Amino acid sequence: MNYRMILYLLGWVLNIQGLCFLLPVAVGLFYGEAQWQFYALMTLMCLVCGVLLILKKPKRTVFYTKEGFVTVALSWLLMSLTGALPFYLSKEIPRFLDALFEMVSGYTTTGASILTNVEALSHCALFWRSFSHWIGGMGVLVFLIAIVPLTGGHVMSLMKAESPGPSVEKFVPRVRQTAFILYSIYFAMTVLEIMLLLAGGMPWFDAITTAFGTAGTGGFAVRNASMGFPYLHAHYLQTVVTVFMLLFGVNFSVYYLLLSKNIKKALKSEELRWYFGIVAFSILCITWNICMQPNSGKWYDVMHDAAFTTASVISTTGFATVDFSKWPTMSHFILFALMFIGACAGSTGGGIKVSRIILLVKSSFREILSIVHPRGVNVVKLDKKRVNEEVVKGTLSYFVLCILIYVISVLIVSFDHFGHNPLYDLQTSMTAVAATLNNIGPGLGLVGPAGNYSAFSPLSKLVLIFDMLAGRLELFPMLILFSPHTWKGSLGAIKRRLSWKKESM
Amino acid sequence: MNYRMILYLLGWVLNIQGLCFLLPVAVGLFYGEAQWQFYALMTLMCLVCGVLLILKKPKRTVFYTKEGFVTVALSWLLMSLTGALPFYLSKEIPRFLDALFEMVSGYTTTGASILTNVEALSHCALFWRSFSHWIGGMGVLVFLIAIVPLTGGHVMSLMKAESPGPSVEKFVPRVRQTAFILYSIYFAMTVLEIMLLLAGGMPWFDAITTAFGTAGTGGFAVRNASMGFPYLHAHYLQTVVTVFMLLFGVNFSVYYLLLSKNIKKALKSEELRWYFGIVAFSILCITWNICMQPNSGKWYDVMHDAAFTTASVISTTGFATVDFSKWPTMSHFILFALMFIGACAGSTGGGIKVSRIILLVKSSFREILSIVHPRGVNVVKLDKKRVNEEVVKGTLSYFVLCILIYVISVLIVSFDHFGHNPLYDLQTSMTAVAATLNNIGPGLGLVGPAGNYSAFSPLSKLVLIFDMLAGRLELFPMLILFSPHTWKGSLGAIKRRLSWKKESM
Repeated sequence: MNYRMILYLLGWVLNIQGLCFLLPVAVGLFYGEAQWQFYALMTLMCLVCGVLLILKKPKRTVFYTKEGFVTVALSWLLMSLTGALPFYLSKEIPRFLDALFEMVSGYTTTGASILTNVEALSHCALFWRSFSHWIGGMGVLVFLIAIVPLTGGHVMSLMKAESPGPSVEKFVPRVRQTAFILYSIYFAMTVLEIMLLLAGGMPWFDAITTAFGTAGTGGFAVRNASMGFPYLHAHYLQTVVTVFMLLFGVNFSVYYLLLSKNIKKALKSEELRWYFGIVAFSILCITWNICMQPNSGKWYDVMHDAAFTTASVISTTGFATVDFSKWPTMSHFILFALMFIGACAGSTGGGIKVSRIILLVKSSFREILSIVHPRGVNVVKLDKKRVNEEVVKGTLSYFVLCILIYVISVLIVSFDHFGHNPLYDLQTSMTAVAATLNNIGPGLGLVGPAGNYSAFSPLSKLVLIFDMLAGRLELFPMLILFSPHTWKGSLGAIKRRLSWKKESM
Repeated sequence: MNYRMILYLLGWVLNIQGLCFLLPVAVGLFYGEAQWQFYALMTLMCLVCGVLLILKKPKRTVFYTKEGFVTVALSWLLMSLTGALPFYLSKEIPRFLDALFEMVSGYTTTGASILTNVEALSHCALFWRSFSHWIGGMGVLVFLIAIVPLTGGHVMSLMKAESPGPSVEKFVPRVRQTAFILYSIYFAMTVLEIMLLLAGGMPWFDAITTAFGTAGTGGFAVRNASMGFPYLHAHYLQTVVTVFMLLFGVNFSVYYLLLSKNIKKALKSEELRWYFGIVAFSILCITWNICMQPNSGKWYDVMHDAAFTTASVISTTGFATVDFSKWPTMSHFILFALMFIGACAGSTGGGIKVSRIILLVKSSFREILSIVHPRGVNVVKLDKKRVNEEVVKGTLSYFVLCILIYVISVLIVSFDHFGHNPLYDLQTSMTAVAATLNNIGPGLGLVGPAGNYSAFSPLSKLVLIFDMLAGRLELFPMLILFSPHTWKGSLGAIKRRLSWKKESM
């Protein structure tokens, strides 16, 4: 373990975090809220600690995948821990675990909240919550598209499974340039959404925070009714958000191709077609299912809500216009399945990712074919290119690992009691874990759009925090951080160094 | 496709089925019930058709895996279709689809029923239901342990994954001898259970049918309250059934090893240890979970019911002593998870099988290890032997395929409406499919131990019938039967033959 290097990188994370705190400070000052002081204090603390850590550049820069993953996991933890402090210090969220849950939910772009009344928060707290989505989405983009492929070998193959289309790094070999292009697209799309929302008469503050929530596919809202708030042109605003939620769930390399005028290639992406296919299928099924119910209202109103909710869940954003907890059973199951499918690889969305689902389905069909034609050579193809067998196996294992973490999490969370709350049943536990592990936010039952995560026990909250982080970072960083194998030998090395120092004294 | 050979084998299946019908005839005559005539009629019909089909032995005996799987799928379908006729003809089950559902449930040893009042059936119908479990269990044993390994190649490797312990075929190379040993163990254990039940004062009819249901891990009961019926020594009888449910869920090669006095090797089986480990863990968790509730009763009574239910679900039997639909959430989730885990490979139980679960867990951990130690050689071991990579991949694919069928089935089934029945929600749809695909029987909600499958729409019943058959035959036979690739070219061949006949005329 190259501890020096890890600390050095964490120092940079702290510095960035410190600078990020300046924005809520500005918002607080603008609205004349006293809470700006806590954010200013955090800026100071982060910068002091951060600068101390980066003072000395480590000599040994050798860095293995293991260390990279540990650094990424620690970065997200560190950002969440420091980010949660202003909520706690300002007493806007009285318990630290709740503040941490809220912040992890922000940075992992989940959007699951423990708050019962969002509108009671100060503007700077609301801004900080939504802004954390935007930073989180940015961080994930760089982590997935720029850093993970650099680690090479095993992880490289995982990544290949993820961005099977034209991967960005092929066009622009250097990480910095890749990151710059990604950020430009991300920034431009956010600005575009803010402008379209303002055009619909949304107040400035709401427009900016909503755009942050959409861009990071987060889902924290500044209104208790989320996007169901009766804005003047609510229908238009909801449509804008629906479109942008879907757009931020698309693989960013598609936008790169569009920018470089390679439109034909961009539209041929198999993942893109499946993604919009699944969206269309879900909207139609949900609309049909609801319209079959008595007193369901006009079909185009139903479809409007179905489209918003489908986009919100598949892109793993989690905004809501209606309480879909009250929808019929089939719609519930579609939403539950969409939670796991998630957005496209190489987007800011979470979940298993559409390209992995394609590989899973194709490799399953291959198994059947190989019995019918035992002598035929069956390969799995994506975008007309043969997929490496290692990638197929990696994808299968990823799926199993995901289900394994899911089952263990539900087992722990389902032990919670909620008195005799009739809303609490298996659905609540199962969708709470699905909504956090796949970074959506709201689930069904007690954690539906009208509910929140405040009633869970501290143990369950810790499990859900782990799930949010694990899901966001594609499982491995968090698992490696907590694997004893990673730290084996480290204790011994520290002891040796200490004894060596004693001897040399 | 060797149609001649398939028809010839189906002829033998019909003959066996015809002979099996003689037993309910005897029961009907014994109890003086008029329904015996329908079973006698079926004996005649089956034997006539069967004998006609086996009159001419096919010359070409070449038989590929594909054809073997198609034959197995057709056998189960044929047995269910003919087996359902007496129910329908005698009007004991007025609709044919319901009768078919009941019979598929019997032969696949599922135990899911569409009957609202079991006790209203005649003795010969009750006997036939339970006897079909016993035949189904027998058929599966031979299919899995004696036939599947013979198909070689791809399927062979699947089978290896399944009976990772000392596989029976290694000891006794010839199929007939293997089958004979299996049947002897199966028969002896059934007789032993009948005797122990009789010793507890259970009536003869109940003892025999209960033993049939336990042996095939089926779960059809002859009482509306299932094993919750207030027999004189109910506690003792339930304990006997608990033990035998667990025993019939054990890999039969363990019994073979015990018989050949290789006790040490038998007890060292990794699958056996995991199986009993999961059982113990589940019983303790469920007991703890229920005892935390107010007014839960004495802990040993709770544990008695928890043990019975755990054994019933993990062995995929499906008997019930209590309405576990009313248990708290964590217990529900444990039962839901146990449904998928299922019994040991090479037993009469269904589900994914414990040995596959072991491989899935181990290969997931390997993925993590391979990042921590990228240069280390990581192999998956079972019973201290290295598992072939093809087997690992096959197991991963099997799991994905299972989940895929599950998701599609729930999607269709969840579209059903049950008016405003408050018991109907996602839980009902999700556990109904889980309980049929894994051949358990009762689920939760509307299909809980106190409910039944009668309220589902005809489409849902068809889907559940498919699931029961797919689950019982380890997915592939049913998938291959319905895969267009299997029949590609067959139509052309038939046309060619017809035109050739015309020309030669």
